[in-house]
Amino acid sequence: MTDRIRDYLSATPHDTATLVVDLDRVRQNYEGFARAFPDTAIYYAIKANPAPEVLSLLADLGSSFDAASVPEVEMALAAGASPDRIAYSNTIKRERDIARAWQIGVRQYAFDCEAELEKLARVAPGSRVVCRLLCDGEGAEWPLSRKFGCVPEMAKRLLARAPGMGLVPFGLQFHVGSQQTNSQMWDRALATCASLFRDLADQGVYLRMVNLGGGFPTRYLRDVPEVGRYGQSIHDALRRHFGNRLPQTVIEPGRGMVGDAGIIRSEIVLISRKSDDDPIRWVYLDIGKFGGLAETMDEAIRYPIRTDHDMDPMEPTILAGPTCDSVDVMYEKAPCDLPISLQIGETVLIESTGAYTTTYAANGFNGFAPLTCVCI
Amino acid sequence: MTDRIRDYLSATPHDTATLVVDLDRVRQNYEGFARAFPDTAIYYAIKANPAPEVLSLLADLGSSFDAASVPEVEMALAAGASPDRIAYSNTIKRERDIARAWQIGVRQYAFDCEAELEKLARVAPGSRVVCRLLCDGEGAEWPLSRKFGCVPEMAKRLLARAPGMGLVPFGLQFHVGSQQTNSQMWDRALATCASLFRDLADQGVYLRMVNLGGGFPTRYLRDVPEVGRYGQSIHDALRRHFGNRLPQTVIEPGRGMVGDAGIIRSEIVLISRKSDDDPIRWVYLDIGKFGGLAETMDEAIRYPIRTDHDMDPMEPTILAGPTCDSVDVMYEKAPCDLPISLQIGETVLIESTGAYTTTYAANGFNGFAPLTCVCI
Repeated sequence: MTDRIRDYLSATPHDTATLVVDLDRVRQNYEGFARAFPDTAIYYAIKANPAPEVLSLLADLGSSFDAASVPEVEMALAAGASPDRIAYSNTIKRERDIARAWQIGVRQYAFDCEAELEKLARVAPGSRVVCRLLCDGEGAEWPLSRKFGCVPEMAKRLLARAPGMGLVPFGLQFHVGSQQTNSQMWDRALATCASLFRDLADQGVYLRMVNLGGGFPTRYLRDVPEVGRYGQSIHDALRRHFGNRLPQTVIEPGRGMVGDAGIIRSEIVLISRKSDDDPIRWVYLDIGKFGGLAETMDEAIRYPIRTDHDMDPMEPTILAGPTCDSVDVMYEKAPCDLPISLQIGETVLIESTGAYTTTYAANGFNGFAPLTCVCI
Repeated sequence: MTDRIRDYLSATPHDTATLVVDLDRVRQNYEGFARAFPDTAIYYAIKANPAPEVLSLLADLGSSFDAASVPEVEMALAAGASPDRIAYSNTIKRERDIARAWQIGVRQYAFDCEAELEKLARVAPGSRVVCRLLCDGEGAEWPLSRKFGCVPEMAKRLLARAPGMGLVPFGLQFHVGSQQTNSQMWDRALATCASLFRDLADQGVYLRMVNLGGGFPTRYLRDVPEVGRYGQSIHDALRRHFGNRLPQTVIEPGRGMVGDAGIIRSEIVLISRKSDDDPIRWVYLDIGKFGGLAETMDEAIRYPIRTDHDMDPMEPTILAGPTCDSVDVMYEKAPCDLPISLQIGETVLIESTGAYTTTYAANGFNGFAPLTCVCI
């Protein structure tokens, strides 16, 4: 909670659930990354929160952008970024979307298999290509599957082919898993990268860049390491594995840039028990899994919850959303402790919701409008 | 797959993933329910697919509507339904939304706790109120949680209070779980309802209606019982428990009305393996968990998949969506058998996707537009 958000909320009556983003906090987070990673380019992961005000601020601050689609490329351009500050980092792209991005001027693309490299050779000639490595996401709270990346052997073979296809074998990228709370997790992947740099150099193919991905955590219920600690451990790992021949580096923070800059204000729609002697209470909000809190899936992300009664005695509470869908329950296996004195109609603040909320919101499920975002 | 959808698809070039709904099939499904439940009112569950063409067709056919919110009430009105054909069946409603629905003319509301009944007494005077009972959802493929309903004792106490609050204690409702493949599952809940009808009559409170809910399945990979079998077993159960004093009944089909009327046409964006000797192939489509296939969560709903090569040899395939999100994988634990000859750019048809797809689609995640729906 920031003072600016507090002032905004007290001056603005509540209607429907709204995400309020404090742009000052986004600026501080950007500056924090820039300090912690002084020699690294920052590519903001647009998908975390594509609000135009967030993108414009970051463009002004000098950020580059990680786009997952042509519409995201266009959002970055609209925010004032030139095409050379945009990387099309999704490894899964329709050929006509690559062609469109290339026409717009984007010259850096991710891939993780032969077929994607061939698409790039056909419609994005001369571009820099970055191969994504499989990474197991150990230590992350929102784990990665095997969906993205390939094994190092395959990356080596494909990058060695790139020059003959009219592409620039530019580097490697990996992702250690979102909300990664172990800053050491980059070490193993960087060892693999360094070894690939050497092997390819032996074949006369000189990679230049390592994209360290995102995964930088935001603070939910538990403290997370400071961004400076990530900067230091990654710097140490780079030195350890690359020695004095450090590559260019890139980070792609999304959650770490905007997560703690946003708060959702919601309203208690109903408080009930299932029987007169039910030991546990249900509290239903005007936002749920389909309204923007999709990351509560499997109760993975536990958002801090604030009310006007946080000094009152607490009781365990099941927290659910307003739709007629039975899976629209946020916290049930591990209920929240919330004040006994809560009343229907009161406000509940859901903190650290700046990332992966508006864009996960369903397009009108049960007739409810998608989550709105106000940037202040 | 219907002939009309086949003709439409062959006449229309593919651009992005699109749901095509055959209104003739919706009409057949409506008529099937009307035949199987000749003495029962049909309230279509708008949330399953609120396409205006679907709602108008059903309004013309004489359907009533189950609305989850004020916008859904308004959609039903816009489709031509009068307010007396609309029930506001969500048990979780803001008081100002109840007031709005009452102003519009809606006079039937669901509730499952004292606080909701009190809201109804304050802002929807004279309305018929229907108490939802807890039901365990056994036998359903998309199970219900304890989110909705109360125990029978509490329902009895609350319905007995309704007349003194200026409300009409109209009946009971329950839901046996979506995609319920056991037509016997209604029996136990109806026994409870009959017993509540008797107990309340002993207190001079005469309930009139039982809302049998939805849960009627659509055909995915496995055959499901014909709707006639549901009609027969429910009729038998009603006779068994209510004898000759049958209540008015209501069903709220959603999936069963539109599920098999829709097909999503999607495009293969990428086919890859993670290593040169990877035994399993990944196929990435232009639609995934965030684009409308949310019901593949935990691989719960397994949609039939059709391609142009279904006579060719098959191999197990992991099926995933196009976003940069690692959870955007539809079938991985139990991969699909798909033709080895599939190529990037080819069409994949995802059948029985008429229900719970467009409305579950995220509002632009990764920059991808929500799923469009074309009704023919």
